Amino acid sequence: MKLSNRIVTVSRTPIFLGKDAFSKFDGLVKSLHPSGIFVVVDQNTRKHCLPMLLEETTALVNLQVLETGTGEAAKSLENAEKLWNELFLTGASRSGLIINLGGGVISDLGGFVAAGYHRGINYVNVPTSLMGQADAAIGGKVAVNLGIVKNQVGFFYPAAAIFVFPEFLKTLPEDHLRSGLAEIIKCALISNGALWRRLQNKPVSMLLNQPADGALWNELVLAAISFKNKVVMKDFREHKLRKVLNFGHTLGHAIESLSLTSMHQPVLHGEAVAAGMICAAYLSHKKSGLAQADLKAITGYIFDGYRPIHFDSSFKAQLMDIITHDKKAENKQIKFTLIAKPGSPLVDVICDAGEISEAIDYYSNISQ
Amino acid sequence: MKLSNRIVTVSRTPIFLGKDAFSKFDGLVKSLHPSGIFVVVDQNTRKHCLPMLLEETTALVNLQVLETGTGEAAKSLENAEKLWNELFLTGASRSGLIINLGGGVISDLGGFVAAGYHRGINYVNVPTSLMGQADAAIGGKVAVNLGIVKNQVGFFYPAAAIFVFPEFLKTLPEDHLRSGLAEIIKCALISNGALWRRLQNKPVSMLLNQPADGALWNELVLAAISFKNKVVMKDFREHKLRKVLNFGHTLGHAIESLSLTSMHQPVLHGEAVAAGMICAAYLSHKKSGLAQADLKAITGYIFDGYRPIHFDSSFKAQLMDIITHDKKAENKQIKFTLIAKPGSPLVDVICDAGEISEAIDYYSNISQ
Repeated sequence: MKLSNRIVTVSRTPIFLGKDAFSKFDGLVKSLHPSGIFVVVDQNTRKHCLPMLLEETTALVNLQVLETGTGEAAKSLENAEKLWNELFLTGASRSGLIINLGGGVISDLGGFVAAGYHRGINYVNVPTSLMGQADAAIGGKVAVNLGIVKNQVGFFYPAAAIFVFPEFLKTLPEDHLRSGLAEIIKCALISNGALWRRLQNKPVSMLLNQPADGALWNELVLAAISFKNKVVMKDFREHKLRKVLNFGHTLGHAIESLSLTSMHQPVLHGEAVAAGMICAAYLSHKKSGLAQADLKAITGYIFDGYRPIHFDSSFKAQLMDIITHDKKAENKQIKFTLIAKPGSPLVDVICDAGEISEAIDYYSNISQ
Repeated sequence: MKLSNRIVTVSRTPIFLGKDAFSKFDGLVKSLHPSGIFVVVDQNTRKHCLPMLLEETTALVNLQVLETGTGEAAKSLENAEKLWNELFLTGASRSGLIINLGGGVISDLGGFVAAGYHRGINYVNVPTSLMGQADAAIGGKVAVNLGIVKNQVGFFYPAAAIFVFPEFLKTLPEDHLRSGLAEIIKCALISNGALWRRLQNKPVSMLLNQPADGALWNELVLAAISFKNKVVMKDFREHKLRKVLNFGHTLGHAIESLSLTSMHQPVLHGEAVAAGMICAAYLSHKKSGLAQADLKAITGYIFDGYRPIHFDSSFKAQLMDIITHDKKAENKQIKFTLIAKPGSPLVDVICDAGEISEAIDYYSNISQ
C-alpha cells in the first residue's frame, strides 16, 4: 500500500503521514502566523518526543513548553484551567498556536484548551502514541472528563493540521502499543471485511513483537485514519454515521471510567475498548445477526492479545449505572453500535438492561 | 417603528421580540424534541421571571430548575462545572435543552455549559435584563471568566432561538436598566448618526424615568438587536467587522474586572462600558479625527446618566496591566475600536501606553 504524504483533508484539516511527515510542518506553522507557540507535553513526551520534533523541524522558535500529567486522570477540567491560566500569564493572544505532542490524553486536553481559549485558537496535533495516531488525534473531537465520566465536556473543534510520524511509535511501551491496536481492530470490524481478514492472519501477539516495523504500522495507521476520515467528513458532528466509530466504546468507556476509581490497576483506553468490543460482539450476535463463528473469531482474536479484566462483584452494577448516564443514552434507552457482520456496522441499536447484563456475563465467563 | 415578531436569523438563530414574543415559544421548544428541559436561573429571575415565563408558555413540562449565583462572579468555571455535574446527575442527554432565563451572566454561563455538555446541546435564551436583551443574549458568544479576567474562556455557539419579552424589564432595578442602556448608547455611536441624534434628545436620566414605557424600550432594543445582527451575520467569529461591537469594551472590561477585586462597590458591566466609551471617545479624538464637539457631546451625555467611577492611585497601573493581557491585544499591541464620528467605527486602531494613560486621565479629571 503506497503511503501518501498528505492523506486527506477533514474540515480543512490536512493530515501528513509517514517518514517525511514533517517536511510540511515548518511551512504550515509559518502560514498560521502564530504570535506565540505553546507545546503541550507530558513528562514522557517532553523527554522522548520533543527532542525528535525539534530535530525534524525549524519553525518552533521561542516555544513555551506546557507540561501536564500523564494518564487519563490528567484529562480534567482542573488541568484545562491550569493550562488556560498558563497561557494567560505568558500573554498568549488569539493568534497563539498550541501544538499537542503526545497521546490521546494530550490531544483531547490540548485541543479542548485551544477550543476555549479566547473562543478558539489554532492547534496542531502531533500524536506520539498508536492510539493517538490511529484514532484520538484525528477527527476534531476534543474533551475532558467530568470526575470519572469520560469526555463529558467537550467540543467539535478541528485541528489546523495533524502530523503522524511513525518514528514516535518506537518510544512506546508494549502496553501502549497494544492499547492503540484496539482502535485498529475496531476499525477493521466496522470498515470492511478485507482489513479484518488481513488482521486475522496477524495475531495481536505477533504484531506486538514487531514494534520497529515502520512499514507495517504505517500501513495499519493509514488504514485506520483513512476510514475514520471518510466517516468524519460525512458526519463531523456525529448526528448519525459517525456513531459507527463508537463500536465497543459504550461499555469500553464505562469500564475505563470505573477502573480509574475502583480498580487497583487502571485499565488503558484500548484495553477497555477491547473488552467492550467483545461485549458488543455478543450483543451483535444476539440482536443483529452476527454469526456465531464471527463472534467466536472476534472473541478469540482479542483474547489472544489482551489480558482479561476481572470484574469484582459490585462492578456490573456500577457499570450499568454509568452507562445509563452515558452521553450515548438518549431518553434512557441504551443505544449501541453493533455489527451485522465484520464491515457492516449498525448504529443506535437499542439494548435493554437484561441484554447488556448478559453481554457482560459472556465476557466475564470467558475471561475467568 | 413597527415591531416585527421575528426580526432576524443569525446563524440559524431566530429572534422573537415584542409582547407576543412567546407565541412561537411552545412550537419551537417542541420542534427541538428535548429529552429533558433545564432552566438556568438566579435567585432573582427564579422569583420574578420564571412565574411569568410559565404563565406565557405551556411547553415547559417536567422542567428542572438549575439555580446559580448572581453577578459577574457567578460566571466562573467552577459554576460551569457545578451545572455540568447537575446535568449529568439528572441524566441529561445529548438531546437535552437548556433555557437561559436571566441577564448576560446567565446567558453567557448557560450558553457555555450548553456548548460543552456532550460536545454541545441546544439552548434557548430568554434575556430578562436590558443588557441581555439589547446585547449579551444576542450573537452566540458564550463565555466564563478566568479568575477576574472577563470572558477569557468561551466559544462561538449560537442559541437555537432567542425570545425578547419586554415585560421582564419592569422587574429590573434602575441601576440594571442604566447598565443595559450603555450597550444601546454604544450601538448608537457605532451604527449610524440617526440613532445617536435621537438619543441626544432623550437624556439617560429621562429614559430611566420611564421604565414602564414598553414601546420606548422595545424601539431601543430593536434598534440595538437589528444592528448587532447585521454585524454578526457578516462576521460571526469576529475576524474583523464584529470588532466594532467592542467600542468602549477594552477598557470597560478591564475596569469591570478590577472592580470585582479591588473596589468596595462592584461596577456593573454597562457602567464600566460607559466609562470605557468616554476613554475610547478621547482616543478617537486624539487618533481618529473625532471632532472636539462630538467628544464633548458623548462625554456630557454619558456623565448625565452614569455615576463617575473614582480610581484610587494604584488603579491605573493595574488597568494597564490587565489590558496588555486582554484578548484583543495581539502581539502586545493594544488595539482599540474607535470612531471617526458617530456612526463611523474603526477597528484595530493601535494605541500605545502613553495614549491610553492620557485617556484614563481625561476620564479621571472630568469625573472628579
